[in-house]
Amino acid sequence: MKIVKAREVGEREVERLLTKAAFDEVELNPKIRESNRKLFGRDMSAAELVRQIVGDVRRDGDKAVIHYTKLIDRVELTPENLLVSEAEFEAAEQAADPAVVASLRKAAENVRRYHQEQKPNSWMTYRDQGSILGQSIIPLDRVGIYVPGGTAAYPSSVIMNAVPAVVAGVREIIMMVPPKNGKINPYVLLAARAAGVKKIYKIGGAQAIAAMAFGTETVPRVDKITGPGNIFVTLAKKEVYGHVDIDMLAGPSEILIVADKTADPVYTAADMLSQAEHDPLASSIVITDDEELAGKVAAEAEQQLAKLPRREIAQASIDRNGLIVVAEDMMQAMRFANVSAPEHMELLTAQPFQLLPYVRHAGAVFLGAYSPEPLGDYFAGPNHVLPTGGTARYYSVLNVETFMKRTSIISYTQPALAAVSDDIIRLAETEGLQAHANAIRLRRNEKC
Amino acid sequence: MKIVKAREVGEREVERLLTKAAFDEVELNPKIRESNRKLFGRDMSAAELVRQIVGDVRRDGDKAVIHYTKLIDRVELTPENLLVSEAEFEAAEQAADPAVVASLRKAAENVRRYHQEQKPNSWMTYRDQGSILGQSIIPLDRVGIYVPGGTAAYPSSVIMNAVPAVVAGVREIIMMVPPKNGKINPYVLLAARAAGVKKIYKIGGAQAIAAMAFGTETVPRVDKITGPGNIFVTLAKKEVYGHVDIDMLAGPSEILIVADKTADPVYTAADMLSQAEHDPLASSIVITDDEELAGKVAAEAEQQLAKLPRREIAQASIDRNGLIVVAEDMMQAMRFANVSAPEHMELLTAQPFQLLPYVRHAGAVFLGAYSPEPLGDYFAGPNHVLPTGGTARYYSVLNVETFMKRTSIISYTQPALAAVSDDIIRLAETEGLQAHANAIRLRRNEKC
Repeated sequence: MKIVKAREVGEREVERLLTKAAFDEVELNPKIRESNRKLFGRDMSAAELVRQIVGDVRRDGDKAVIHYTKLIDRVELTPENLLVSEAEFEAAEQAADPAVVASLRKAAENVRRYHQEQKPNSWMTYRDQGSILGQSIIPLDRVGIYVPGGTAAYPSSVIMNAVPAVVAGVREIIMMVPPKNGKINPYVLLAARAAGVKKIYKIGGAQAIAAMAFGTETVPRVDKITGPGNIFVTLAKKEVYGHVDIDMLAGPSEILIVADKTADPVYTAADMLSQAEHDPLASSIVITDDEELAGKVAAEAEQQLAKLPRREIAQASIDRNGLIVVAEDMMQAMRFANVSAPEHMELLTAQPFQLLPYVRHAGAVFLGAYSPEPLGDYFAGPNHVLPTGGTARYYSVLNVETFMKRTSIISYTQPALAAVSDDIIRLAETEGLQAHANAIRLRRNEKC
Repeated sequence: MKIVKAREVGEREVERLLTKAAFDEVELNPKIRESNRKLFGRDMSAAELVRQIVGDVRRDGDKAVIHYTKLIDRVELTPENLLVSEAEFEAAEQAADPAVVASLRKAAENVRRYHQEQKPNSWMTYRDQGSILGQSIIPLDRVGIYVPGGTAAYPSSVIMNAVPAVVAGVREIIMMVPPKNGKINPYVLLAARAAGVKKIYKIGGAQAIAAMAFGTETVPRVDKITGPGNIFVTLAKKEVYGHVDIDMLAGPSEILIVADKTADPVYTAADMLSQAEHDPLASSIVITDDEELAGKVAAEAEQQLAKLPRREIAQASIDRNGLIVVAEDMMQAMRFANVSAPEHMELLTAQPFQLLPYVRHAGAVFLGAYSPEPLGDYFAGPNHVLPTGGTARYYSVLNVETFMKRTSIISYTQPALAAVSDDIIRLAETEGLQAHANAIRLRRNEKC
């Protein structure tokens, strides 16, 4: 674990360490590169590979989806079993532990309740002479959710994507999950069905994103794609963006903990590791004004790490991206935190609400010793699909409006239009758009 | 002007005609292709050219911006005059007609007032045992606005982009405008200054978008880029998306008018032309249940067209994309309108509010004979930056939240966390994430 002191290295150097590379600079690890060479017979960047897959799926539909699923996921699919069957749902119900199902239900209910509070209303406002302006906020028709498979199965991600879409009023929700040995985790299936997802496909990676963006014989085209994934999923989302909307481009997960001398080093280290165990590329950062705490957290993290089942992943992440910054004071610590714009920001300080007004850039903020990140990942209600890699500067946490869109409403009466017609004609003619001016002049019974 | 009857050609064929190609299928016109070949010495797709420009600007900053401005816009810039100077603002004030400036001020005030109504508040909600959940809605730090130059100058676009950003509370707004013979339209400059834009750069095209996304020696990096542009601007926005947020990918402008037998053919034709005069690729569509009206509108459009100063553009647009659909009834007309998902939808019917509940997909809706599109383009208050090409299925009109982002707030107390800790531990362990479970267990004083 690296410890740096702002006093010694300077603010600029700390800021440099805290500013992460953008998603397109993520280098594929050599294993993936080697395996791509074997599969495709030539060196390809991840972006080139993704463009090829997206183009093929757009042109050849199911055929290309089945081809790439066999090639990459080593699973043989047919058009008939792309879709999860009723028998597979029943098997999932047999396999599931009822206590886990009950916990998933409670989590989904908390998520539903929180997101219900986000739901906006359409509105109208009355103006002069019978005119009305307004804004309709309308749910999307059909959305597609991507749920990663990979090193772990994430039923919680199903809830976090599907429930807000349901609350928004989306008419149809479909879902893509990469199959592992041809199967999908039972809790993923049950969480999806409970949340109201109609169709689940056993497709992963860039081919899943392309299938949802353009539609295939089996997969209906959606209006928006949400949910996180690996670098191929992320690049595919960028490639199809514009043909379809997407939630955001997300990279590896991060936590940044702002801690003062009152922070418990045991909790602080545990929260770092709860991020580090996700991914070797995940990053875990502590910023504190207390040098003593910095040392204790580093030592405690080492101890806790040794006992983790996913210690290889967590160790790789800590070695690569573990960082403790000793700031000169808490205001400098908050400045650093905002420069990082982390996905998760914990405030492990004596008076965390005092710092809330200084948080400008974060996906989610966790206040105080009893609000650890896993509370938000699983249960409290706010969403866990969050902007990463510094993109909290401009992206929002997934929310109900992610699944809605806004339409303006304009209704003027004859006298209301007449009252402003000189101004409109003047502006249209200034811009050289005579037909715009004519549309107004003709309504004043002028000849054009 | 093409007239098709749904009864004769069938619903499917009408839907096919109404579904526009996505932005990446826009073919460059042969003139642009030829000129690119001359400039760059080889055949390049628009996307390849844009990738090259974006890469060069990212690497070489101002030098690349100046290079491409000279090559493409034929304007010689230096790092010192990229930015519009105080003397240029003064010259604009001298050149401006005070009546136009006054109309722009009134328009800006209407836009400000409407967008003020959109402004969301951060909120918190009290839960059990001292816990609190909430959502902060925070303005972006710095945004960049693109205002097209091209065949017309658009001071109205300055207002429509800048005012919502100001209402949102954005700290710094910068703007890019392609120079025409080295100059920028005076009303564009005055509208920008009045709206609160701090810095205006004489840069256009893909190089302007890249400069804002990555920053150069002279241009600060922004968090989000908004505003419409030509195909190069649009492709550049897609290329930099992820490094920076963007509002949407927009293509040529469109209007779709739903008209019944009470619609005035003179108004209907005028409103079609107010769209057609923008761009040869613009599209103007009428859907009506009245065959007689269809013929009258076509004839009237021809007459009005002949007298327009921009008749070449409008004629090309009408020839290419002008369409009148005769529907079997008004409900079918509304289904067709939603399939098209137009940027602007006018309801020129006897009782337009009766149809509002059936509008699912449109950028903006204009109700009744006295709400023509130019009223919304210039003056009423709602935004004129709208989704095009069928993307109203998923994109919103530009709004105050375009310039804000959402952050979740989570604060639990010790008893509140204890009450839900079993569920969280169960879910974390089900997902195989032991360090997540440990972060909770350690807070129950368990050994991990």
